[in-house]
Amino acid sequence: MKRLEDYVVSIPNFPKEGIVFRDVTSILQDPDGLKLCIHELMKKLEGVEFDVVTGTEARGFLFGMPLAYNKHKAFIPIRKKGKLPREVLSKSYTLEYGTSTLEIHKDAIFPGQRVVLVDDLLATGGTAAAAADLIESLGGIVVKIIFVMELAGLKGRDVLKGYDVDSCIIYQGK
Amino acid sequence: MKRLEDYVVSIPNFPKEGIVFRDVTSILQDPDGLKLCIHELMKKLEGVEFDVVTGTEARGFLFGMPLAYNKHKAFIPIRKKGKLPREVLSKSYTLEYGTSTLEIHKDAIFPGQRVVLVDDLLATGGTAAAAADLIESLGGIVVKIIFVMELAGLKGRDVLKGYDVDSCIIYQGK
Repeated sequence: MKRLEDYVVSIPNFPKEGIVFRDVTSILQDPDGLKLCIHELMKKLEGVEFDVVTGTEARGFLFGMPLAYNKHKAFIPIRKKGKLPREVLSKSYTLEYGTSTLEIHKDAIFPGQRVVLVDDLLATGGTAAAAADLIESLGGIVVKIIFVMELAGLKGRDVLKGYDVDSCIIYQGK
Repeated sequence: MKRLEDYVVSIPNFPKEGIVFRDVTSILQDPDGLKLCIHELMKKLEGVEFDVVTGTEARGFLFGMPLAYNKHKAFIPIRKKGKLPREVLSKSYTLEYGTSTLEIHKDAIFPGQRVVLVDDLLATGGTAAAAADLIESLGGIVVKIIFVMELAGLKGRDVLKGYDVDSCIIYQGK
C-alpha cells in the first residue's frame, strides 16, 4: 500500500541551487495518488463544520474544488491581481523575491460564514496568511487551513499561529 | 429547478468596453451551481473511454480535478511558462494582445493514452489548440475537449476542427 508521500517526486536544485522542490503534480499523475490525496485532505475535515472552501491560485484550485464538490459546499477562488471580474478586496504581501497581491470577490463570503482554506504547500505561510486576512476582512471565520505538504523548517505555522493548521505530509527541512 | 446558465453572472465592459464577461466563478459560489456544473461536465464524458484528464492553468484546474477524481483518472496540469519543475515540452501561441506559452511535463502522458481536455471557456480556441498540440506531441490522443461555456460568435470550433468539442452553455455572441 503506497503512502501519499511515495507519489511525490523531489527535484534537487529547483527553482534554484540548494532547494529540493517537492512536486505535488506528481501525486496527481497517478489516479491512485490523486484519489488518496483527496481522501487524506477529506480526513482533515472530519468533524469540521464549514460553509465554504477557498483556494489560492493556481495550485489551491486543484485541491479545493474536489473537496468543495464532495462536501457540497461553495468554492471561492482567491486570485492574483486583475483576474477576478467583479468588485474585489485586495491584499498585498511580501514574498522572498518581492511582493504579490491576492484578490477575492467582495460578495463571495458573508459575515459569519465558516471557511476552510486549502493549498498545496505550507512554506513560509505568507500566502495563506494573506488569504486568511482577505477572508476575515469579509467577515468570514477561518475554521481550518489544510495543506497537502508542509516544509516544517520554514516555520510557516508560526505565521499562522491562532489558526487550526493541518498538513497531509510534513517534511522536516526547508 | 435552476439551469447552469442561471448561475452565471454577466459583467458588461470587462475586461474592456464592449465585452460582456461571463463569470464562471459565480457558478462555484453556490454549492448547487458547483455540483450541477460538475455533473453537466460528467454527462459530456458518458461513453467516452479515456485515461487522463488535462486542464489548463488556472481555471481549467477548477473543472478538471473533480472530473479526474470522480472518474478515477490522472490529472495533468498544463501550465504557463516556468511553473512546472520537471522537464517540459513548450508551445507558444498567439493571443489577441501578444503571445503566451504553455508547458506540460514530458513524462506526463504516454504514447497512445486517451486524453480529455477541460477548460472553463471556449473563446477563440487558441489556448485549447495549443494544449491539444502539446498532448499530441507526447503521443496522446485527444478524445474529447469540453468547456463549461462557449462564445459561439468567436468561432473557436473552427480552430478546433477535427476534435470532438462540447460545451455545457453556448452563448451566441462574442
